[in-house]
Amino acid sequence: MSRIVQKYGGTSVGDTDRIKNVAQRIKAVRADGHELVVVVSARAGVTNELIARAKALNPLPSEREMDQLLAVGEQETIALTAMALHAIGIPAVSYTGAQAGISTDTVHTKAKIKGINARALERDLEAGKVIIVAGFQGTNDDGQTTTLGRGGSDLTAIALAAAIHADKCEIYTDVDGVYTADPRVVKDARKLAEISYDEMLELASLGSKVMQTRSVEFAAKYGVVFEVRSSFNHNPGTIVKQEVAYMEKVVVRGVAVDKDQAKVVVSNIADKPGTAAKVFRALANANINVDMIVQNVGRGGVANLTFTVPLTEKDKAVKALEPALKDVGGAATFDEAIAKLSVVGVGMKTHSGVAATLFQTLAEASINLELISTSEIKISVVIAKDKADEAARLVHAAFALNQA
Amino acid sequence: MSRIVQKYGGTSVGDTDRIKNVAQRIKAVRADGHELVVVVSARAGVTNELIARAKALNPLPSEREMDQLLAVGEQETIALTAMALHAIGIPAVSYTGAQAGISTDTVHTKAKIKGINARALERDLEAGKVIIVAGFQGTNDDGQTTTLGRGGSDLTAIALAAAIHADKCEIYTDVDGVYTADPRVVKDARKLAEISYDEMLELASLGSKVMQTRSVEFAAKYGVVFEVRSSFNHNPGTIVKQEVAYMEKVVVRGVAVDKDQAKVVVSNIADKPGTAAKVFRALANANINVDMIVQNVGRGGVANLTFTVPLTEKDKAVKALEPALKDVGGAATFDEAIAKLSVVGVGMKTHSGVAATLFQTLAEASINLELISTSEIKISVVIAKDKADEAARLVHAAFALNQA
Repeated sequence: MSRIVQKYGGTSVGDTDRIKNVAQRIKAVRADGHELVVVVSARAGVTNELIARAKALNPLPSEREMDQLLAVGEQETIALTAMALHAIGIPAVSYTGAQAGISTDTVHTKAKIKGINARALERDLEAGKVIIVAGFQGTNDDGQTTTLGRGGSDLTAIALAAAIHADKCEIYTDVDGVYTADPRVVKDARKLAEISYDEMLELASLGSKVMQTRSVEFAAKYGVVFEVRSSFNHNPGTIVKQEVAYMEKVVVRGVAVDKDQAKVVVSNIADKPGTAAKVFRALANANINVDMIVQNVGRGGVANLTFTVPLTEKDKAVKALEPALKDVGGAATFDEAIAKLSVVGVGMKTHSGVAATLFQTLAEASINLELISTSEIKISVVIAKDKADEAARLVHAAFALNQA
Repeated sequence: MSRIVQKYGGTSVGDTDRIKNVAQRIKAVRADGHELVVVVSARAGVTNELIARAKALNPLPSEREMDQLLAVGEQETIALTAMALHAIGIPAVSYTGAQAGISTDTVHTKAKIKGINARALERDLEAGKVIIVAGFQGTNDDGQTTTLGRGGSDLTAIALAAAIHADKCEIYTDVDGVYTADPRVVKDARKLAEISYDEMLELASLGSKVMQTRSVEFAAKYGVVFEVRSSFNHNPGTIVKQEVAYMEKVVVRGVAVDKDQAKVVVSNIADKPGTAAKVFRALANANINVDMIVQNVGRGGVANLTFTVPLTEKDKAVKALEPALKDVGGAATFDEAIAKLSVVGVGMKTHSGVAATLFQTLAEASINLELISTSEIKISVVIAKDKADEAARLVHAAFALNQA
């Protein structure tokens, strides 16, 4: 008998039939004698409905009240899921975040988990019950409802798995694992059986959109091994863990493309200490996530700074840069017609051939590299957005990622 | 400055505009310098939607999970109401039943309030905030969500008024007070300015449907004076309290008609001790509410028992009586074409003319009395259902109830 935490996202519990489907999956796992804690999200669409209702009353609703409101979505799902289990003879009991002992800080709408008091939950597990826990929510020391922000239900599952020392944590989503590339773009993309936390982090932050980086970081910190898989089939998914045993030759694990970025070039700024700091301080103060910073060598006392920002934050960036550029001189141009392509893999830094293969592959296809940045486990390049899909296919083939 | 508890029902908070309307009413009361605790129900329709969703998954949902599910309705309204208040500059904070310190027993779907720890609530009141509390819900010692059953939000308001020693408790509903008769039937029915708990109890239990008897009993027990009024206008409502100063001549306060009753005649049962007990024990075991019991004088060793049961419980009564009648002999007949008409008023028992006037009025209209029962503050008669409205009009006029 092992102890399993499962998490089902909003589409997996989207309607009556899907909740029944989840109940059947739970029944099958339980028939194998396992203890089971199940984290569920709000039904797909419910959170957006609630937000629309709030905005109709107040365009800037208080974050405390927003949490009180949004927690409703998951609370509905836990009760319905427990009822669906009862209907097929499985003892089950629902827990809100507060009832499950999930305590958080007081930062409404993006609270951090402080700890989990799993006493009540352990008692019901011992009594042989399946525990259904509302994802995405907790309570602060003052008894107020808090929510964990984007990807919060994944985080609930991983934190619970750590708290109750689960043997396994399964994250059910609408994709059935982590692929070597986006299967919609690269036809022979291959599902990875295993991947390391670090690789998953890079893929998550690079737009593969399977999970928020925050949950992966939490799992890495507490050593929670988890599997990403689909609730709509029974295929094995991708297991994410600390160490992955690779054959020596496997270096690149996947190709990720992020089309939701804009390139910013700040040109003709004074080439002296403190100039770049002023530019990035202005962006940081506006909470803008900057990536892939490159500064060229200054000539004639002026220099250029190039970097990327998320497309959604472009307008904020334009505004934030204005006063800074008045200060340091120079002008900013923005390019939305770009994409970031990255190859990711632990051990890449000891294989110098990776960068060469990547650059050569793109060069042979006449795809220009506008920016390059590297880390221990990834190489990213900025290229024209309309070449991104072609580039992904070529790079995927160049590293033979379709072969295990 | 006084301290006021207000309760708004499901129709009063039914949509965005109505919530805004409630917010404006609250703002006006606060502008007069009062402290305010506001209890709200789920938006009209939400509870039924949730029940439908539950039944689609499980025809007999667990009561614990039903409570977890239904609490969602009020939780949505409190957050939305607080947001609407913020939008017009009123500091407000929402409380679920658990957060408001409302502790109950463990009887899910019809829990009883054990006590209220109003510490957090008092703190926010002192900070000048309007408190919005979810009606209908509480929490048991085990931290599980409970609901208070029908009329639960009224009960929340009255219990909170007692706990925080409110000066006033206002129950906003879709009628604007307690009338001498149903205004849809009796055109010149008059709204009562005041009524005693006992009279209100009789009217509530007799189908005037303004409030559940349970909330009135609670108010009487703790001496909470409350006013029933409408959220759709600014007319004064009806104040319900212990003692009402009447002119000596005012005896009958109102006429109530209940068409949702069935008459049961159990005939030819053995006229000996214990027979009636067996019949009513069978009904009590099936949780059937029996009223207006009459046993005629036995002749020839057999007797007849007549009584009324709520129409909704008729089928249960048929079933429950079967084995009992096999035991004591006799047969049961059921008549659904009846109505119960009652005249209600404190002090009635010292005015013997009331019964005479009632019976004579009905006799002159050739309306037959099938059953009669009396208590200290009411006289009820069972008559043909199709004569009930006419009877109400005649009796209302006979007692000159249109005049204060």
